[in-house]
Amino acid sequence: MVGLHMKRSKIIKAWKSEGRVTSVDSDPTSPRPSDFLDQIELSIVTIPDLVVPRIESQNDVLSSYNTNNPFIRYNSIKFLGFLVLGYLLVIQIIGIASVLIYLALISSAKDVLRKKGLKTLTFAIFTVVSTFASCGFVPTNENMMVFSKNSGLLWILIPQVLLGNTLFPSFLRFSIWVLGKKFKKAEANYLLKKTAEVKYLHLLPGMHSSFLVATVLGFIFIGLILFCSMEWNSAALSGLNTYQKLVGALFQSVNARHTGETIVDISTIAPAILVFFVVMMYLPPYTSFLPVKRDPQWQIDCQERKNQRRVGENFILSQLSYLLIFIILICITERKKIKEDPLNFSVLNITLEVISAYGNVGFTTGYSCDRQLKSDPTCVSKWYGFSGKWSDEGKVFLIIVMFFGRLKKFNMNGGQGWKLL
Amino acid sequence: MVGLHMKRSKIIKAWKSEGRVTSVDSDPTSPRPSDFLDQIELSIVTIPDLVVPRIESQNDVLSSYNTNNPFIRYNSIKFLGFLVLGYLLVIQIIGIASVLIYLALISSAKDVLRKKGLKTLTFAIFTVVSTFASCGFVPTNENMMVFSKNSGLLWILIPQVLLGNTLFPSFLRFSIWVLGKKFKKAEANYLLKKTAEVKYLHLLPGMHSSFLVATVLGFIFIGLILFCSMEWNSAALSGLNTYQKLVGALFQSVNARHTGETIVDISTIAPAILVFFVVMMYLPPYTSFLPVKRDPQWQIDCQERKNQRRVGENFILSQLSYLLIFIILICITERKKIKEDPLNFSVLNITLEVISAYGNVGFTTGYSCDRQLKSDPTCVSKWYGFSGKWSDEGKVFLIIVMFFGRLKKFNMNGGQGWKLL
Repeated sequence: MVGLHMKRSKIIKAWKSEGRVTSVDSDPTSPRPSDFLDQIELSIVTIPDLVVPRIESQNDVLSSYNTNNPFIRYNSIKFLGFLVLGYLLVIQIIGIASVLIYLALISSAKDVLRKKGLKTLTFAIFTVVSTFASCGFVPTNENMMVFSKNSGLLWILIPQVLLGNTLFPSFLRFSIWVLGKKFKKAEANYLLKKTAEVKYLHLLPGMHSSFLVATVLGFIFIGLILFCSMEWNSAALSGLNTYQKLVGALFQSVNARHTGETIVDISTIAPAILVFFVVMMYLPPYTSFLPVKRDPQWQIDCQERKNQRRVGENFILSQLSYLLIFIILICITERKKIKEDPLNFSVLNITLEVISAYGNVGFTTGYSCDRQLKSDPTCVSKWYGFSGKWSDEGKVFLIIVMFFGRLKKFNMNGGQGWKLL
Repeated sequence: MVGLHMKRSKIIKAWKSEGRVTSVDSDPTSPRPSDFLDQIELSIVTIPDLVVPRIESQNDVLSSYNTNNPFIRYNSIKFLGFLVLGYLLVIQIIGIASVLIYLALISSAKDVLRKKGLKTLTFAIFTVVSTFASCGFVPTNENMMVFSKNSGLLWILIPQVLLGNTLFPSFLRFSIWVLGKKFKKAEANYLLKKTAEVKYLHLLPGMHSSFLVATVLGFIFIGLILFCSMEWNSAALSGLNTYQKLVGALFQSVNARHTGETIVDISTIAPAILVFFVVMMYLPPYTSFLPVKRDPQWQIDCQERKNQRRVGENFILSQLSYLLIFIILICITERKKIKEDPLNFSVLNITLEVISAYGNVGFTTGYSCDRQLKSDPTCVSKWYGFSGKWSDEGKVFLIIVMFFGRLKKFNMNGGQGWKLL
């Protein structure tokens, strides 16, 4: 959202440098464009609306602008900026209200909070914001495990996970379409038709948005089937009825990308599901099956970029290569524990932890004293992540992986210097 | 090699269909071009030399031919065909002779064979051919483990591994260069300069060949460092002196791509090395770091291919996706054993077995009764692959993976219908 507002100020600067805008600050108290950026940082919501440029020459150098209305791009980006803000607020307020209503109605969930000494409002706000932001923190020690029977609560959180992450571009587009029917028709039209010109990562073209929904639902469906078929009668889901099991499996499948809240102990579930989760965690949020031809402009861009490739770029590896390097490094730092405690320190568990950090998911197999081969009498089972038992070097590598995962969009074209033949 | 000779017959057919060749079989006993293919199949070495086409029109429709000498492409491919045959024979004969001399000189190696009742000549031929062909079979039950102290034997086999597999294109090019200095100058020149026109998978352009050597040596070096640093004082290398350890580690590192002969028990080595081996096994043999710009023709081809992409092609996944699917499937078929026998049936061991099958390597962690958590009194430790303990379904999947790995060149562009964003 901040990026959108900054893009807006860049347009004004571009206009100004081309002599398209006369000085707008005849009144020294009114903010000048140079103050614009600071103002955004101070208060995003109260961005001054008066920086409306006047045109001096109709000579349209910026060919990408709509020639009928040179303001349309500027206005559309402004509209989009506020729409994103509205989207964030509305979805999360609905979520918080739903959780509060649920807690008021269902005593079993409220009892859990009372026992733990958590305030209802704190829990509702914290959980919903954390879920929407794909953070995966929950103010209980056992994550969502204590709520495994509260299917209603899970149903409230599932849309928060999806709308805040994988389905964000699709629903943002949907919101533009709905709002465009009633007001801001021109802007909405511009955003929907000329999506590529807006250059906003979270707004995808129409076809891509649809395929994204299909892909996300497809993955969830596969995860659901896999989870149900492998874990239906397992200890992890014991004590739940059929409906609760189904909702729990759905919740688990949705959370594998990328929220990481869980209603079961990840370490007890079948390796086949773990490997599937590893893949789900690895995939970037907007991974989509996209069978249409790339539009020609994209292809030219792609080719230009290839030609412009600098020598240094050849040494950038693909994402997967870096991850494998990190897994190997962590296997090295933890080699002693891998040998002594092979069930806890299995390579699968380490891989899961690394990919989980990379995808900023938060799944962990934890550490269990029961899984030790030579039982250590001083070992106390506690609810914390598996990486808590790692050496300091291993933890440092994991932190690097987390940063690396957040910055992945800067390296999506890595590894092009390599040819697999 | 057969492909090259068949390519040659295709050129003749092309000429004939263009009216460039008059009938060459005035004598019905001489072979006609249509018999050509059958002859190749019957006897590769005695390919008839008399199918020399006469030219009727000088109108050069096939622009890719050298205009000075329209026979140059035909002759070069013929030259290359025989050169490949010579290469295969010379390298392997040198290898067999070296092994025989080694066995005659070093009594400890000969003693091993005598105890096992193996004939020296059988052993030499079998081992060298198997090593050169990246097969990895050795006529002993313990693979190369019995020869871990016979560093000389390992030194003989290391070049066989490299020349028969990863370095084959580079050394084939080198042979052409050397032979071209003495005779067949024109053909060698054509092969070296117009490598792309020959369209022979195993002959790469000069730059690519050099980078291939650097890449292969780089990987071997990394593997060597990793192996030495992790396993220097381990049980796997105990009883060896410094020199033997170094040669053994080098042998192990070279064999990870893709021969799979081993002087240590793979299951006892550190997981970090196993993960590295998994990556090495996954990479196709001619994987090379190639920082040069793709030549323009390649890019146009690439673009054309993209445009021609059919609907069905979008559903083809990338190699890695299929492998992960297979690993998940095998985790499903072996789920009971994974639960009961987690140290033998670890996901890493399964992954290693699958990637080993995909890369046609042959590494296996084996199965050890000592690693059972609940020891089974009927268990007998034997030297056979880990997959021998799998269920029938798991074995069937592994067989499919092996075929899939052999046919990987037909799917190197899979997964283009997917966009990771």
